[in-house]
Amino acid sequence: MPELRQNMATKEWVIIASERAARPEQFRIQAERTMDLLPAYEPSCPFCPDNEHQSVEIMRISDDPKLDWQLRVVQNKYPALRPEGDLARCFDGIQRTMNGVGYHEVIVESRIHNTSPALESLDDVQRTLLAFQKRATVLREDPRVNHLVCFKNHGVRAGSSMAHPHAQIIGLPVTPQSIHVRTTEARHYFENTGRCVFCAMLEAELEAGERIIEANDSFVAFLPYAAYSPFHLWILPRRHSGCFREISQKELRELAQILQSVIQRLYVGLNDPDYNYMLRAPSHAEEHTPYLHWYVSVVPRVSQAAGFEFGSGMFINTALPEESARFLREQDTRGLSEDAS
Amino acid sequence: MPELRQNMATKEWVIIASERAARPEQFRIQAERTMDLLPAYEPSCPFCPDNEHQSVEIMRISDDPKLDWQLRVVQNKYPALRPEGDLARCFDGIQRTMNGVGYHEVIVESRIHNTSPALESLDDVQRTLLAFQKRATVLREDPRVNHLVCFKNHGVRAGSSMAHPHAQIIGLPVTPQSIHVRTTEARHYFENTGRCVFCAMLEAELEAGERIIEANDSFVAFLPYAAYSPFHLWILPRRHSGCFREISQKELRELAQILQSVIQRLYVGLNDPDYNYMLRAPSHAEEHTPYLHWYVSVVPRVSQAAGFEFGSGMFINTALPEESARFLREQDTRGLSEDAS
Repeated sequence: MPELRQNMATKEWVIIASERAARPEQFRIQAERTMDLLPAYEPSCPFCPDNEHQSVEIMRISDDPKLDWQLRVVQNKYPALRPEGDLARCFDGIQRTMNGVGYHEVIVESRIHNTSPALESLDDVQRTLLAFQKRATVLREDPRVNHLVCFKNHGVRAGSSMAHPHAQIIGLPVTPQSIHVRTTEARHYFENTGRCVFCAMLEAELEAGERIIEANDSFVAFLPYAAYSPFHLWILPRRHSGCFREISQKELRELAQILQSVIQRLYVGLNDPDYNYMLRAPSHAEEHTPYLHWYVSVVPRVSQAAGFEFGSGMFINTALPEESARFLREQDTRGLSEDAS
Repeated sequence: MPELRQNMATKEWVIIASERAARPEQFRIQAERTMDLLPAYEPSCPFCPDNEHQSVEIMRISDDPKLDWQLRVVQNKYPALRPEGDLARCFDGIQRTMNGVGYHEVIVESRIHNTSPALESLDDVQRTLLAFQKRATVLREDPRVNHLVCFKNHGVRAGSSMAHPHAQIIGLPVTPQSIHVRTTEARHYFENTGRCVFCAMLEAELEAGERIIEANDSFVAFLPYAAYSPFHLWILPRRHSGCFREISQKELRELAQILQSVIQRLYVGLNDPDYNYMLRAPSHAEEHTPYLHWYVSVVPRVSQAAGFEFGSGMFINTALPEESARFLREQDTRGLSEDAS
């Protein structure tokens, strides 16, 4: 019998379609891995070394005195939003418009063209998270920015148009409607129970155990009870906090470790699927409430949203979260990272 | 300068990325049309004639005395939900579960394997809408069903796994969270203005004119001011109604005409792109309010949702709705349909 499950943080129902459920290994990508077909250096790539002049640089990081950069943050060449000018609103009856003031930055994660978080060193992954943190700290000071979205698209199915490993930051002048909805639901839960719904979920997941992938001192990686797509997973900080920006350097290291590890499990188990990962955090105005909690969401793009999803906002998950979690736990990722060589 | 626009019915903001905007013709599909590669009859297809025994039939329609069916409604072989049994809820702390009671039906739209709404006769398209109406009327009587989603997936990128033209109906035992959110927003708008937000949008669109694709006595097809993806369009009834099920046969004919026409414009202009269309209607409990209005949403799958969309629920539209509407208005669709031969 199929089953509906509700995510108590978002109040969204998901259909777990056990009748049509596939085994985890059926989601394995059959095509050759894109990265294996690419060179380590691509002279025509604007993100490869020696092409730095092709982009407007915002910051760079290097821990290696022999290298002038290991990571660069640059302006998106075709930005969704632009930082210049004052915010202007035009509310004309039914039509509401704002000019596109905001930020759209690109993090070039590595000098190497054909790598990715599964294959990079742990230091590389941590450096990307550090860049998110540093830029979030700067953008927090701009009163025109209400909400920050930090994310990575890996692969064409995940919406990436550039092969060179990169992540993105978008600073929005509005709070998205979906964030307002989550805030309202989390506040209701807090009013009813006196608890943060994310803390309560984490406690329940740790007690159940069957959807946990792995954990370290500061973070737990698991498939939510109501995961909305196959292998959709969350990395939740154990410590209640609505603010990614304020994590310690020890926590940043542990986040890099667990994020890289789950991505490596996907890489080995599903043959490098395309995926998105997103830092999901409250809007600036609400980052210090007792009821909102930041986390990382990872969505492997192994299924396709269709008319049902567009028409209802609900998802049909054709994999059992418990089986997906077991499958990911079982993957052997030793020797993948550059650290291992 | 990029621009943000808000859809007043959903309160969702969209980024209209004018800096990276593509011209409408750049969205044209370069690959050969799938339908042109398929036979008119495929012996191994469970939806082709002579294979009727492979599916459990719910109803059939034929207006032609020479044919035993022109359209069939069958049970989905791998249903997301099943109609047997009582609803059972289990609310155990943070985990909320229901058994998967509901309906998942498939409408086989035609006897012909390699056709689609762009190429079918107008009678065929109308028959599909009639099947939605007839099944919606039956399922309305089942008190276990709260919300109905009627939709079609055309093409692999739109989530379709079967080439034979078919649509689907899912009867849900819950109301999706996104529908609750829309209901709340529409009620607020009504409280503030005394008007249905959809009626107000339609009036504003007709007055502006630049996003209108076409109209007939009962319906208007247009790109919403805050269309969330390129060529995302709505077909809105002029008459205020929350209930698709109750439209007249004259309205059904006019809906078939305008739906087929916009799909033909996509077919000609973009070379048969994959798309989803959905009947968007209130839940059963709220179908007779003064503030909710049903409509058809059509989403051509010419762009890919990525980390930003997953992380924020907002969309970046890389096409100007006004230009997309003009492009669709200009398409010449004469001679496409079977009616024309």
